[in-house]
Amino acid sequence: MIFRTIDYIEGKVRIIDQTLLPSIEKDLDLVSVDEVAEAIKTLKVRGAPAIGIAAAYGVLLSLETILMQSVTDPPPFFFDRKKGGKIVIGQEPDLKSVRRKLLQAIDTLAATRPTAVNLFYALDRMRNMVEQEHEDIRSLCEKTEKEAFCIFDEEMETELRIGKYGSSLLKDGMSILTHCNAGGLATAGYGTALGVIYAAASEGKKIQVFVDETRPLLQGSRLTAWELVNNDIKTTVLCDSAAASLISAGEIDVVITGADRIARNGDTANKTGTLMLAIICSKYKIPFYIAAPISTFDPETTTGTEIIVENRGKEELISFQGVKIAPSEVQVYNPAFDVTPSSLITAFITEKGLVYSPFDLNIEKARLS
Amino acid sequence: MIFRTIDYIEGKVRIIDQTLLPSIEKDLDLVSVDEVAEAIKTLKVRGAPAIGIAAAYGVLLSLETILMQSVTDPPPFFFDRKKGGKIVIGQEPDLKSVRRKLLQAIDTLAATRPTAVNLFYALDRMRNMVEQEHEDIRSLCEKTEKEAFCIFDEEMETELRIGKYGSSLLKDGMSILTHCNAGGLATAGYGTALGVIYAAASEGKKIQVFVDETRPLLQGSRLTAWELVNNDIKTTVLCDSAAASLISAGEIDVVITGADRIARNGDTANKTGTLMLAIICSKYKIPFYIAAPISTFDPETTTGTEIIVENRGKEELISFQGVKIAPSEVQVYNPAFDVTPSSLITAFITEKGLVYSPFDLNIEKARLS
Repeated sequence: MIFRTIDYIEGKVRIIDQTLLPSIEKDLDLVSVDEVAEAIKTLKVRGAPAIGIAAAYGVLLSLETILMQSVTDPPPFFFDRKKGGKIVIGQEPDLKSVRRKLLQAIDTLAATRPTAVNLFYALDRMRNMVEQEHEDIRSLCEKTEKEAFCIFDEEMETELRIGKYGSSLLKDGMSILTHCNAGGLATAGYGTALGVIYAAASEGKKIQVFVDETRPLLQGSRLTAWELVNNDIKTTVLCDSAAASLISAGEIDVVITGADRIARNGDTANKTGTLMLAIICSKYKIPFYIAAPISTFDPETTTGTEIIVENRGKEELISFQGVKIAPSEVQVYNPAFDVTPSSLITAFITEKGLVYSPFDLNIEKARLS
Repeated sequence: MIFRTIDYIEGKVRIIDQTLLPSIEKDLDLVSVDEVAEAIKTLKVRGAPAIGIAAAYGVLLSLETILMQSVTDPPPFFFDRKKGGKIVIGQEPDLKSVRRKLLQAIDTLAATRPTAVNLFYALDRMRNMVEQEHEDIRSLCEKTEKEAFCIFDEEMETELRIGKYGSSLLKDGMSILTHCNAGGLATAGYGTALGVIYAAASEGKKIQVFVDETRPLLQGSRLTAWELVNNDIKTTVLCDSAAASLISAGEIDVVITGADRIARNGDTANKTGTLMLAIICSKYKIPFYIAAPISTFDPETTTGTEIIVENRGKEELISFQGVKIAPSEVQVYNPAFDVTPSSLITAFITEKGLVYSPFDLNIEKARLS
């Protein structure tokens, strides 16, 4: 149930192009920082943990490009997680200038999407590596490479733990509703909300999953349904607006989504539509869980009101695959995320266990444990 | 602000093909009962009042066809609301057989869509006309013709009254959110929820309208936005799932939708997503109104649980304009309507005024007044 959706292979960041799924399963090799940034912006790679990893790999790619440009006689050169970076440098470049260029690359990657905290978390870790004292370029390379792969490995380990803790909430015969894609595609390859489902399924629990299609970009029907079907899990797709009647009819036992940023008090930014689900769950007394790694909890953000929500373009709402679906004269309201107040959240499923209310206290405890 | 969206012209039911909007504005001439039934089923004509009128016109068309088939030497023959039906019958057909065929046509039209009560209301009125004692075919023709045009005229008068009463709720500077299309396209040409907006705008009130796109068939972005823009009203389109964040941000003063069937206790079936809005409004204490003619109140339905909700096809959710948007292996949950409990409704806007709680009592009063 682990997808290989993002990888660093021979000087390329390899992703599966999520905008083409489910029609076309196509790997995309990104060969420059600008290509990585563009892929994040255009949601070819998306999902808070996945864009964190993509950004870390983007920094690695940048370092490689800078070094390649510095050598007079380009040697065969790449970072590789199995083989270790083969660093053959013809003419030692200036450490200070490499560092400056790398920090520029980090800035470029940080300017792609404003909401997911994982992006900044991963880039901060990479920045720390770059800014450290280094004896020479080789040391900078080794530490930067290690950090990027470490971000990936920790993320994967985290997802497996989230799955294990979350699965304890699911019983045989349960119906779970999820929104957007918090699966392997959005993460290191297993998922947060979907990781919980995969863990339950792999423990032999008979569960079925309902998936909001998640307009405008349909990450639910295109990506989550694709993941679930590929894992032989019974899957039903619905329009986002149909969740209320489904839940009111008693068809759903639990709702689980991912998160893009969680404030200190538990207020949670996630894909637009999450707030709607949380309100509906509260009305019908259905448990509403957020599955997210501790890295999604942002100690710098006190409450949800401080979270900057990305507003996306008009095109996403007035046309679809080139077909006009609204008059071009209209304005659009197209926030990528909404903020769910923690009062509507039953608990957080993290790699350190379930975090219940009082959230300010227990989030801090989990973060520091 | 009145659209000519449905008409009976020279032996044809003329509709604007709503499936092609907003890209293409194309009239469609329906020349048989089967074509009318098919147009209703495939939502070429849609909206509770509009399908009532289309069905009544369908009966007229059927009568005309039957008579045309009965005459040996077809004369120029058609019903026309201005000129009156020109009934020239070469060979007087058998009244009983005409009646039988007409009742068959009514059954065909009644079997198109199960939820909107207006369809059955209009067809019941036509059935009553057909089943009455008639001296001759001419009398049957005259009365049937009169009834069909009367259904249209009453509907239009009703919409103008709904507009007037509803407009009293709207103040200068207000932002109104609506869902699906309860405008001229869905009715005799003015609208219920949109009639209220048109009335306020024509009284010079500066209002702006937010429109849920209304998946899966996008009646909000395709039809409502098209109507509003054509009437120079400031229009903003959003995904259905974004309504929660818009309302929670305090951007909406009032939500108004139409209805497809209202039970005696006020429980209301309307386009899927209406329940979601009502729940969100209740959470944020925003008034939630239903604008609907008295004909939408069904005295035969005690509560919402008795309302049969139409489930629509899988294709609507797994592809869009021929592009695959979900794996074909998935199941879908695709109800055309949901049922909003009356406890979440602030008031009904009808042609007889505003109807407030206690609904069972006040709906009955309005119906019988």
